[in-house]
Amino acid sequence: MDYKDPIIKPYLTTISLDPENQGTPIHFTNEWITPEELFFLRNHYPYPPITPDSFTVPIGGLVVNPGSIHYQQLLKMPYKKLVLPLECSGNKRKEFIPETFGTQWDDGAISQGIWSGVPLRDILRVTGIKPNALEVVFEGHDYGKIEGLDGEYTFARSLPLDVALHPDTIIAYALNDQPLSIKHGYPMRLIVPKWYAMASIKWLKRITIIDHPFEGPYQKLDYHYFPNENNDKGKVPVTVMKVNSIIQQPLPQSTLDKGSHNIYGIAWTGEGVIDKVEISFDEGISWKKTKLQTNESHPYSWNFWSYKWNAFKTGEYTIMVRATDTAGRVQPDVVEWNRLGYGYNGIPTIEVKIV
Amino acid sequence: MDYKDPIIKPYLTTISLDPENQGTPIHFTNEWITPEELFFLRNHYPYPPITPDSFTVPIGGLVVNPGSIHYQQLLKMPYKKLVLPLECSGNKRKEFIPETFGTQWDDGAISQGIWSGVPLRDILRVTGIKPNALEVVFEGHDYGKIEGLDGEYTFARSLPLDVALHPDTIIAYALNDQPLSIKHGYPMRLIVPKWYAMASIKWLKRITIIDHPFEGPYQKLDYHYFPNENNDKGKVPVTVMKVNSIIQQPLPQSTLDKGSHNIYGIAWTGEGVIDKVEISFDEGISWKKTKLQTNESHPYSWNFWSYKWNAFKTGEYTIMVRATDTAGRVQPDVVEWNRLGYGYNGIPTIEVKIV
Repeated sequence: MDYKDPIIKPYLTTISLDPENQGTPIHFTNEWITPEELFFLRNHYPYPPITPDSFTVPIGGLVVNPGSIHYQQLLKMPYKKLVLPLECSGNKRKEFIPETFGTQWDDGAISQGIWSGVPLRDILRVTGIKPNALEVVFEGHDYGKIEGLDGEYTFARSLPLDVALHPDTIIAYALNDQPLSIKHGYPMRLIVPKWYAMASIKWLKRITIIDHPFEGPYQKLDYHYFPNENNDKGKVPVTVMKVNSIIQQPLPQSTLDKGSHNIYGIAWTGEGVIDKVEISFDEGISWKKTKLQTNESHPYSWNFWSYKWNAFKTGEYTIMVRATDTAGRVQPDVVEWNRLGYGYNGIPTIEVKIV
Repeated sequence: MDYKDPIIKPYLTTISLDPENQGTPIHFTNEWITPEELFFLRNHYPYPPITPDSFTVPIGGLVVNPGSIHYQQLLKMPYKKLVLPLECSGNKRKEFIPETFGTQWDDGAISQGIWSGVPLRDILRVTGIKPNALEVVFEGHDYGKIEGLDGEYTFARSLPLDVALHPDTIIAYALNDQPLSIKHGYPMRLIVPKWYAMASIKWLKRITIIDHPFEGPYQKLDYHYFPNENNDKGKVPVTVMKVNSIIQQPLPQSTLDKGSHNIYGIAWTGEGVIDKVEISFDEGISWKKTKLQTNESHPYSWNFWSYKWNAFKTGEYTIMVRATDTAGRVQPDVVEWNRLGYGYNGIPTIEVKIV
């Protein structure tokens, strides 16, 4: 055997295989853009086959001129490139106490990509929209059973008209300057900035404009914050991302030598932009500002933050981090529990030992 | 893009990269033998370079004829093939409450391989052993700093003479019928059946027979059960594996349809063999035997167990599993906490919801 330096690299974290759910190794990918092979995968169903039908998306319902958008047309239209994270609304679900049912994501259900695509509003200019339009329904080619319900369903969700027509709501065809891979929605998928990723429908099959609230199971039954265990009182739909952050390094429960250490991670939000990220070494009594990297040309992107920690005394330390956005939202000490385990954004807290 | 069915496969779970620690996706590898690419990796240090010196292991200390074993010689000697799991003594460390410091393994620090190698006793026949021999020290080529200590250390540990001379303690050169990969100890590593894997020294550099208890840091300071947080009273060395098991499927917190489900997993032990694996659906009040696959020709191997569960009533269920070995050991309700977080073998418990 010839000697070759062994390749050391992170892998996706397998959460389930049927359907495929795999997390980004978020503590080990300190890059601005998550490489496609480490981009998290979140599926409800098996991957749909790609057929000639996959390349045409009919646009119907309350349009003036029913029509469709073909992949080849899409590629020729003026496009946008958006740098933004997709975050599954179940990201960090494991943190809820008591535990909730559902795919047990740790903090890897978020990744940041460069998304290229065409604003939906430019496409809908051709079809027109009738004045009584209320929502736009996006249906994917992926389908299957829903536990507890009869029959089969495609994965479909709606957006309010104003969100659907926002100039940065795009039909994307490329991730990180490559055609979408099959796993990420080839040939065409929706990208909805700021919203949790369930809105960014993959394998786009059909677009329908309707005059009433969409009632598909992924809109009406799932993807709500249900504050109660046994009834649906007070339910609120899951929409934009909460203000949130991750301590990428050091790792929880790690042992470090005395000296200077770089504490770093990412922060993101679905309202405004990140305003500041603070760090506390005294269980949240006092907070210091971390160094925040902002990027005005990419207002949707996540932000790196870092803090140079001079740890000169041995002992155990609790490190807490909290992000605040320009909408005035801040990560809470205690996240309101919800039955399906959505939107966990509690203050990341780790313990380290200095020896 | 031509359509190809996307490949869905599990990956190693990245625990740390410097040094490399990656876990087996144990819930998704329901194979008798863990494929090499999914075999867990546990390192204290960077991978040592392979040099001409790597192929000769000097044998010294209290031997009659100091000598060495060369890789090419080893390959020509009568060999054994052993099917056995290696388990890191930190496996399941994450389960301890309160949390302990150290690499935060979930349940993936165990994998089963086919190990081919030559009994150490056959090699020591040539060198002989002096009558005052007490322990055999095995030193690896991997080395580096230890947090809190000055200087650098190779990873080195000793075995009592009787364990070192056991006919199934082998110097291995193959895993799963392939030469060891560099990551798993190429060219030669020790394999010590029944012991936690810290005993199975990789990249074997030197073997030394001594007349006193070895005092290297990985023998004397690390790899002990320390029952107290602040002192070393009552410390007990980590040696053979505790009786243990994993529920591979269903996954914790999963939602399942009414009907029949196969609950399955593995069980293993470092004393005797697995005698039975039981399952409880009533918080441990009553226990039923699962179907246990034993394999008399591979007494060290882990055992598959399974249970056909007819879940006809909707609701939430707690499923607990406990293994018992022929030494009479059983997985405990509560694992005695220890400061370094070794040997967690509490009763695996999951919740599932039937809808």
